[in-house]
Amino acid sequence: MIPSEIIQKKKIGESLTKAEIEFFVNGFLKGSIPDYQMSAFLMAVYFKGMSDEEIFDLTEIMINSGKRAEFKSLKDFKVDKHSTGGVGDKVSLILAPIVASCGLYIPMISGRSLGITGGTLDKLESIPGFRTNLDLEEFEAITSKIGLCLAGQTDKLVPADKRIYALRDVTSTIDSIPLICASILSKKVAEGIDGIVFDIKVGSGAFMKNVEDAELLGEKLNTIANMFGKKNAYAITDMNYPLGRAVGNWIEVVESLDCLKGTAVPDLMEVTFLLAGMMLKLGGKVESVNDGIELAKDSILSGKAYNKFIEMVEYQGGDVSYIENPEKQKIPKHSISVESSKNGYIKSIDAYKIGIAGIELGIGRKLSTDVIDPLAGIVFRKFIGDEVVEGDTLAIIYSDRELDFKKIKEQVYSSFDFSKEKIKLETRIVSVCGNCY
Amino acid sequence: MIPSEIIQKKKIGESLTKAEIEFFVNGFLKGSIPDYQMSAFLMAVYFKGMSDEEIFDLTEIMINSGKRAEFKSLKDFKVDKHSTGGVGDKVSLILAPIVASCGLYIPMISGRSLGITGGTLDKLESIPGFRTNLDLEEFEAITSKIGLCLAGQTDKLVPADKRIYALRDVTSTIDSIPLICASILSKKVAEGIDGIVFDIKVGSGAFMKNVEDAELLGEKLNTIANMFGKKNAYAITDMNYPLGRAVGNWIEVVESLDCLKGTAVPDLMEVTFLLAGMMLKLGGKVESVNDGIELAKDSILSGKAYNKFIEMVEYQGGDVSYIENPEKQKIPKHSISVESSKNGYIKSIDAYKIGIAGIELGIGRKLSTDVIDPLAGIVFRKFIGDEVVEGDTLAIIYSDRELDFKKIKEQVYSSFDFSKEKIKLETRIVSVCGNCY
Repeated sequence: MIPSEIIQKKKIGESLTKAEIEFFVNGFLKGSIPDYQMSAFLMAVYFKGMSDEEIFDLTEIMINSGKRAEFKSLKDFKVDKHSTGGVGDKVSLILAPIVASCGLYIPMISGRSLGITGGTLDKLESIPGFRTNLDLEEFEAITSKIGLCLAGQTDKLVPADKRIYALRDVTSTIDSIPLICASILSKKVAEGIDGIVFDIKVGSGAFMKNVEDAELLGEKLNTIANMFGKKNAYAITDMNYPLGRAVGNWIEVVESLDCLKGTAVPDLMEVTFLLAGMMLKLGGKVESVNDGIELAKDSILSGKAYNKFIEMVEYQGGDVSYIENPEKQKIPKHSISVESSKNGYIKSIDAYKIGIAGIELGIGRKLSTDVIDPLAGIVFRKFIGDEVVEGDTLAIIYSDRELDFKKIKEQVYSSFDFSKEKIKLETRIVSVCGNCY
Repeated sequence: MIPSEIIQKKKIGESLTKAEIEFFVNGFLKGSIPDYQMSAFLMAVYFKGMSDEEIFDLTEIMINSGKRAEFKSLKDFKVDKHSTGGVGDKVSLILAPIVASCGLYIPMISGRSLGITGGTLDKLESIPGFRTNLDLEEFEAITSKIGLCLAGQTDKLVPADKRIYALRDVTSTIDSIPLICASILSKKVAEGIDGIVFDIKVGSGAFMKNVEDAELLGEKLNTIANMFGKKNAYAITDMNYPLGRAVGNWIEVVESLDCLKGTAVPDLMEVTFLLAGMMLKLGGKVESVNDGIELAKDSILSGKAYNKFIEMVEYQGGDVSYIENPEKQKIPKHSISVESSKNGYIKSIDAYKIGIAGIELGIGRKLSTDVIDPLAGIVFRKFIGDEVVEGDTLAIIYSDRELDFKKIKEQVYSSFDFSKEKIKLETRIVSVCGNCY
């Protein structure tokens, strides 16, 4: 087979055989197909798409580039959640302990922050001692022992995805539904799951800017996950404004702990409980998603979810004293108050603008090599629907670095939009589909 | 500027500024933009095209990557011809001496064979001693002195095209009209011409398979050449069957010599005289293309064109004794006759199939690194319109190598199509457009 002819075939919109995709991906991994042919191929896929069969084949070939978690001795239902990412999205930190405390197993491979999108690994690593860099055996062992493990992608797990994703990142070929599906599902199937729930974010702070694109991605993930025989469902949720009241790393851990201890952050817990309900339904623990939501709420009220979080921190090397006494954590050098210059009601808080401020603060990364500030953050003192008068503190910016805070403060303030009329915080749930209904 | 953002801009179909194209091409040349970003960019250009302004800018930036021929002391009109390439296309070898002998100057940079397309340099180099690897100063000096020079692209002339073309070749991004225009025109403008005639081949043995695509390319070349202030015109000519009766390297030189000495090969000379007439009109030597065609015919009858060819061979180091006595050339080891197994009239000879046989014979190259056999060739003893009976020799295959001649013979025979009815060889001229009418 000739690499340029495979590129040509895709370029004119024909479907590739499994043998052709295998030749191309494996040739790329072993170096006989150079980066420049892969990037031309990826761009052709962006424009011409892939059939379901092709996406399935690509996903399987990517999985076979590495090892899979196997959980041979663990017969119970293993389930995971994947979020397409957003601003203030700390759902995994609350959701995984909830679902694990209800008896399902959560082998969760997470990512790091990039661009405006936060990363679960960065949040967890703000807990002193917490290790996310586990090998496959340890990942399997912790999951089997305590019911959950939140770790990073090892070199052994889907190396093809790591290499292809790095190339997509610098060649503007991230936003291709077939490539997104293959990237997400290769890692999830390789984790050894039986079922998966997708949280597809939509809005200014999300990768998908409109509901139509989010639905296309959801339907495609559903189709391909079905082809792999994995029970699955997806929710489309609103990411036009930040999720919860804290955006950062350590401060998101603190907000997650508050939620696990029962403090109500309505929009954040609405999403978390829905996803928990869906996972519990997929795993056969309840008859309906609503029953699952009730079971999830019970796990908070009984303290079981919080205890599961503590157990995870212990097993992954974290210092539990910081969880039990968050005030032990170092106080960031700077805290700057953002005040309102208007009277009225908060109409919206643009998640994209907050995400950009977050990059400036070192919450997120412009480049994957950037070093983050785990103590940096933005905490909202007022949220959508709240009435404010001139001079009220809207948000507090935290930073352990010397930065141009005037500029960052302006950026945070510019994310707020006000209204003279009363505003109600609406539901974040746009739609729910899949095998759980 | 960020390379991936420029790729993204083109990907979503926006026009790039000159500064952006400059940043991208120059970054690629100096190594700060890697091959994999350029190939993704080229694929995005394939799908989204370029505006006339963008093509002009790209062409100019490519020209500025190297030196230009200047011909400071040569005020006369300098004109060239560009063919998109085909099977048996030896027009340059006859045309350049004709037009130079009529008083115009021809600084002609030519290429090598690749795929089924023959290359003028390979043909000329089959003349013992003939040098095509000239530096820019020598190229300018010979053109100024004798009125023509046929040489290869030097490293100094449009290095950007060399690098980009090599990448396009292996990433299936050759067939993009903006990229074709920039590649052709950057080299032609850098040659120092005042005018140019494009011969756009169409048909099975050509790059353009249908007249619509050929017209699109012709119109675009015309537009961009106008933007550079170069007089220009184009002809679309038929390449469904080989041009002339010889396909090879040395044997095409021999056929060209026959034509220069007045032997009639009607279809080949129809194209050659038309292009000569167009060039002479562009250069102001005649009032009309038809007058130019008459002037070109006179240059053959008077022997002036033949003498100009001899002069060129002398000045470019070739052994003129081989031109004066072609039988001096080594006789290839093998000559295999292809016989008809049918009675009737020859309806067509598929140029593509002949081109493929040519690659097998070593006339052309599969890869740019392949070594050719200058003595290999296919000579047609019968052509379209000729009546044949079973056993007649249709063609003779020549080769100086040991090859699977049974297979090649079958390939050559398979290119013939027969008819019971009488067939007339039609004109090769599809259309003529541009500044010469």
